[in-house]
Amino acid sequence: MRVNLSHGAGGKATQDMVQKLILSLLDEDMKRVEGGVGTDELDDGATLPAGENHLVMSVDSYTVNPPFFPGGNLGVLAASGTINDVLMMGAKPVAAMDSIIVQEGFELEELKKITSSMIQVFRENGVKLVGGDFKVMPFGDLRGVVITTVGVGWAEKPILDSSLKPGDKLLVTGTVGDHGAAILAAQQGIEGVESDVKPLTQVMLPLLEEFGDQIRAAQDPTRGGLAQVLNEWASKTGLLITVREESIPIAEEVKALSELLGVDPLQLASEGKAVLGVSPEVSEDVLNFLKERGCDRASIIGEVKESSKYRGMVILETKVGGLRVMERPLGAVVPRIC
Amino acid sequence: MRVNLSHGAGGKATQDMVQKLILSLLDEDMKRVEGGVGTDELDDGATLPAGENHLVMSVDSYTVNPPFFPGGNLGVLAASGTINDVLMMGAKPVAAMDSIIVQEGFELEELKKITSSMIQVFRENGVKLVGGDFKVMPFGDLRGVVITTVGVGWAEKPILDSSLKPGDKLLVTGTVGDHGAAILAAQQGIEGVESDVKPLTQVMLPLLEEFGDQIRAAQDPTRGGLAQVLNEWASKTGLLITVREESIPIAEEVKALSELLGVDPLQLASEGKAVLGVSPEVSEDVLNFLKERGCDRASIIGEVKESSKYRGMVILETKVGGLRVMERPLGAVVPRIC
Repeated sequence: MRVNLSHGAGGKATQDMVQKLILSLLDEDMKRVEGGVGTDELDDGATLPAGENHLVMSVDSYTVNPPFFPGGNLGVLAASGTINDVLMMGAKPVAAMDSIIVQEGFELEELKKITSSMIQVFRENGVKLVGGDFKVMPFGDLRGVVITTVGVGWAEKPILDSSLKPGDKLLVTGTVGDHGAAILAAQQGIEGVESDVKPLTQVMLPLLEEFGDQIRAAQDPTRGGLAQVLNEWASKTGLLITVREESIPIAEEVKALSELLGVDPLQLASEGKAVLGVSPEVSEDVLNFLKERGCDRASIIGEVKESSKYRGMVILETKVGGLRVMERPLGAVVPRIC
Repeated sequence: MRVNLSHGAGGKATQDMVQKLILSLLDEDMKRVEGGVGTDELDDGATLPAGENHLVMSVDSYTVNPPFFPGGNLGVLAASGTINDVLMMGAKPVAAMDSIIVQEGFELEELKKITSSMIQVFRENGVKLVGGDFKVMPFGDLRGVVITTVGVGWAEKPILDSSLKPGDKLLVTGTVGDHGAAILAAQQGIEGVESDVKPLTQVMLPLLEEFGDQIRAAQDPTRGGLAQVLNEWASKTGLLITVREESIPIAEEVKALSELLGVDPLQLASEGKAVLGVSPEVSEDVLNFLKERGCDRASIIGEVKESSKYRGMVILETKVGGLRVMERPLGAVVPRIC
């Protein structure tokens, strides 16, 4: 059997692959540092207990192609993605490291635009760039640039998506699918769709401060999109998640592109949005809080329920009043999307 | 200007590149977390103060080609390299994360051999694998597999190579250049040279416990080899380093290959050795300590001196009694060596 693109798409095939290559080979006590979040949580990051606090760390490789796209570039993506992963664990990002691999023959000025954008995002978000690695691969061995970023931060109490409870409300901080649609469009030579790539520091830190553990779950819907996040949460908790299609904000141009190309926008990546699970008492307050902070299209999209019959499933109430299962994405919509 | 292979070789061209792409763009206060080791130290890793301790973290991308080579494979290399980077900062490695990028069409069984080897090395060294990322790149965009590993550990007092003092002795824990020679040989279809890739946990942890801050500097001579490490130390401290050629242990087959191919073994990577700077009073004790722990070819190779005339230089006393400057490697001896 050979590795194929769907194995890297972030959906079910990726989880099966990670199970085969990593999880099945790890002894139980190798999956985490005692008292911390480890590999088998499949969360945005891991945690290590450190005194009163928890160190949160996250790593991701960014391979996006083209490296410059409407709304951003590889450097913005690498910095924002890493900052967001740390934030989604309930931590304040403090430091990052980068490992850059570039193809022989890549234009230095272009590469400098990428690193300069990355550094600017870190700077604006108070994240120090404390070290890194730089390698060059021969022409023919790599096309373009790959940046792997590591982010670390401190959390008093990390957010574990497994803490979702029946009754909790689900929110998104804005439109979904913009980044995936932008890359798909760029790869197809279609104009007019912009990535939403940006760090969520200005939204998440005040939100966590204000609402504390009433924010039960948080994730940025990157590879596999909203459908992937909700399915992960449902399967992790064994609860039923119901979502109203008409409440899910999708930009007009993303809708149009999805229809044109026959892809599901709920499976397309966002890179500047969060999906939140919050306790029902505060859901309206959280929504208002988000709207006051510039998240104009934030929306309550659904809720978490107890169900013996539909354990671990995600059900979409469609606009015409029907119900359908929102499947975990199976394969790759777009290669090198992030 | 375009990026070329020498920019990724770990020598002077790499440092110039990192200066252009990263360091020159970082404000002074972005280079480190207050009280920690940051980007401009160009050490094996960075540190973050955390209570009484320091968190040490390191990241490296491993691109070695071929992924299976005499003495090891990409997985052993990724785990060992990361463990060693954390050890060289004077820390006990406790956790790691991995980010795997594989080409579409790569044989799954081969990939599993690689991850399985990586996990085995982590297991044997008490390092938890707490999370990671997995991506696939389309055929033609990547050849083979790239693994980026992040290692973290705790140090009471990190080892800063800049703490070297005049009079300090320099040791190596064994033969140098073995890994680079093995990859070079494998790429040329020559047999009989084995990589030395292995973690140094069993050597370094007891050594640090026994000798504490009398170990002033430690680095694993990977890309750029011994010549790179010694030049970094000399230039960081502004001191003169002198080394006796006849004291530098080099395996016979590495010597032979180097002569055959016209490369300098002092510029070839090791992946299971450390270069140490130790205070003169303990140098013989350190040597004996290493030998008792299986480092049969450990050797005192030189010393650190004050010199106004030869500030920041490395001078090699050759076997025939002459003196020559040991240059920092300029370019790439071998691409995808680690």
